[in-house]
Amino acid sequence: MKTLLKPRRKAPFPRTLIATQLKEVESDILEQVKAFDPSVAPYMEHICGAAGKRIRPTLALLTGNAFGGNVDDSRKIGIILELIHMATLVHDDIIDEARTRRNVPTPNAKWGNGMAVLLGDALFSHALSLATDFNSIDICKKVGLASKEVCQGEIMQTQRRFDLSLSKKDYFRIIEMKTGALFAAATGLSAQLAGADSDTCDALWNYGLKLGTAYQIYDDCLDLVGNDDIVGKTLRTDLESGKLTLPILNLLESANANQRQKLNTKIINQEPLDLDVLAGIAEYEGAIEAALDTGFEILESARRDLAGVPENKYKNALVEITAFLEGLLDECRR
Amino acid sequence: MKTLLKPRRKAPFPRTLIATQLKEVESDILEQVKAFDPSVAPYMEHICGAAGKRIRPTLALLTGNAFGGNVDDSRKIGIILELIHMATLVHDDIIDEARTRRNVPTPNAKWGNGMAVLLGDALFSHALSLATDFNSIDICKKVGLASKEVCQGEIMQTQRRFDLSLSKKDYFRIIEMKTGALFAAATGLSAQLAGADSDTCDALWNYGLKLGTAYQIYDDCLDLVGNDDIVGKTLRTDLESGKLTLPILNLLESANANQRQKLNTKIINQEPLDLDVLAGIAEYEGAIEAALDTGFEILESARRDLAGVPENKYKNALVEITAFLEGLLDECRR
Repeated sequence: MKTLLKPRRKAPFPRTLIATQLKEVESDILEQVKAFDPSVAPYMEHICGAAGKRIRPTLALLTGNAFGGNVDDSRKIGIILELIHMATLVHDDIIDEARTRRNVPTPNAKWGNGMAVLLGDALFSHALSLATDFNSIDICKKVGLASKEVCQGEIMQTQRRFDLSLSKKDYFRIIEMKTGALFAAATGLSAQLAGADSDTCDALWNYGLKLGTAYQIYDDCLDLVGNDDIVGKTLRTDLESGKLTLPILNLLESANANQRQKLNTKIINQEPLDLDVLAGIAEYEGAIEAALDTGFEILESARRDLAGVPENKYKNALVEITAFLEGLLDECRR
Repeated sequence: MKTLLKPRRKAPFPRTLIATQLKEVESDILEQVKAFDPSVAPYMEHICGAAGKRIRPTLALLTGNAFGGNVDDSRKIGIILELIHMATLVHDDIIDEARTRRNVPTPNAKWGNGMAVLLGDALFSHALSLATDFNSIDICKKVGLASKEVCQGEIMQTQRRFDLSLSKKDYFRIIEMKTGALFAAATGLSAQLAGADSDTCDALWNYGLKLGTAYQIYDDCLDLVGNDDIVGKTLRTDLESGKLTLPILNLLESANANQRQKLNTKIINQEPLDLDVLAGIAEYEGAIEAALDTGFEILESARRDLAGVPENKYKNALVEITAFLEGLLDECRR
């Protein structure tokens, strides 16, 4: 199957605007290592040093700046949410038996599953402890709930693997929980800490939720249409692990009884070769196109959530992020 | 090797005094199931339904009652700490590859390691969220830190397996973190919620820490001298997994250079038979006796921490718990 992943993106991810603040995020995350016992710190140094995309801190910083909030607050909430995200990655790598992440050995590969379970737990506990620094029960409560949402979203996804009765409503609920919750907390809580009014905070919360959802749809489509070499990670893992994503749900929805029967067989009795064929059918039937269109609609709606944000370069950057994600979605079209 | 585990204990564990309150703890824990998504709830029902000894809620309730505190508060803090404890058990069972706990299949046995990792995470997140109900940043902070201590204690224990350079200081630090922290939080935070003054809260915190430490010493000795059939669980697992416990550290300390060499070889090149012999040597050299004596001293000191507690039947029960633990320690003597 031919893939047409364009190397160039329509809009850059607006990090330059907050480059200094993001640099501080990076050093603050490494600083967290000191919050652990000296014997635990070296493990945390490895985990915290494996720099990720830091999407959540970026969103928190842009939002805080857009409302003229205290930069320390938005940096801190970004770090807390990133630590929760990192804890879930440590545990995900155990579940997926991943040996490397961003070319660095995973904690489970380096120190075994048992140690990796405990390290993720310690990161979770530390992140939730750190939230108390804001001296706001409301912030602690929302951070705790966001963390719980992520875990529950992952549980639901694991539970519904190979479950052909998964509805689109279920799918959206799962990705909103597992990916949307921390994005939403990054923008929503940062707006709250910057003193935005309640309606605007809700709107920013929704903006983050939609960004997370659109990003997950992109990730799901990429898994189906991407080229391993270009993307730089093993693809087609969703279907192999029985994860039913939006393009596949679209395909199942549009299929007639006979086709549905064929799809059920293909999905349940996975054979490696079949996945390429299945991806081809999904493309032919317009199921991938439809998923990408849904992503575009969600991003359009996310932009509308920014109406109450003061006009400034940071707001523009929040708008640009939606254009950046549209660019990513476009790359999945052929 | 002959074991002399007496079936009768010197003092009963004082639960009757708070039987009704403990019954409510049990139903409150089951009630927590409702705090999860309906699709996640059935898993939590299995985990929450496998009733444990509920030591932490018992300690919280007795302490709260002793200070005439609000029973709802001490019940709630007991439940939060018990949920954290349950989360660690779910994760411990993955690490130990345990198939049953209290005759009930473990989450990892029932639903696989991946699901068990996520269920433990969701329990952690929920417990830490629940702590926000007290509307006290200080309580949230202390619950978060206790949770972090437990995780770090377990990391340090895992890290130091088969490490013959482990000092007694290291050993005590590890067990204070992994077992003491939640016991200490149960009595210390319950006293705080009941309005005890700061010094008394500290004393109650220390009382719990010591109880947890003494309990862990008992557990460590039992692993060495107990009889599988009487104790009802597989013993000798500490040495097999390279965990160096107090009696073994005592033995290593008292050994001459030649004996130390022999012990090192026995511990490092484990053979199943050697463990019985090793336990026999530890007993012969008085290393188990010395560990039990340490347990007694710690409990004596714990009783002194209760000096500031008003005289009432609940304080008596807190004293009785130390006698109960002394009874357990005595059972390990031959």
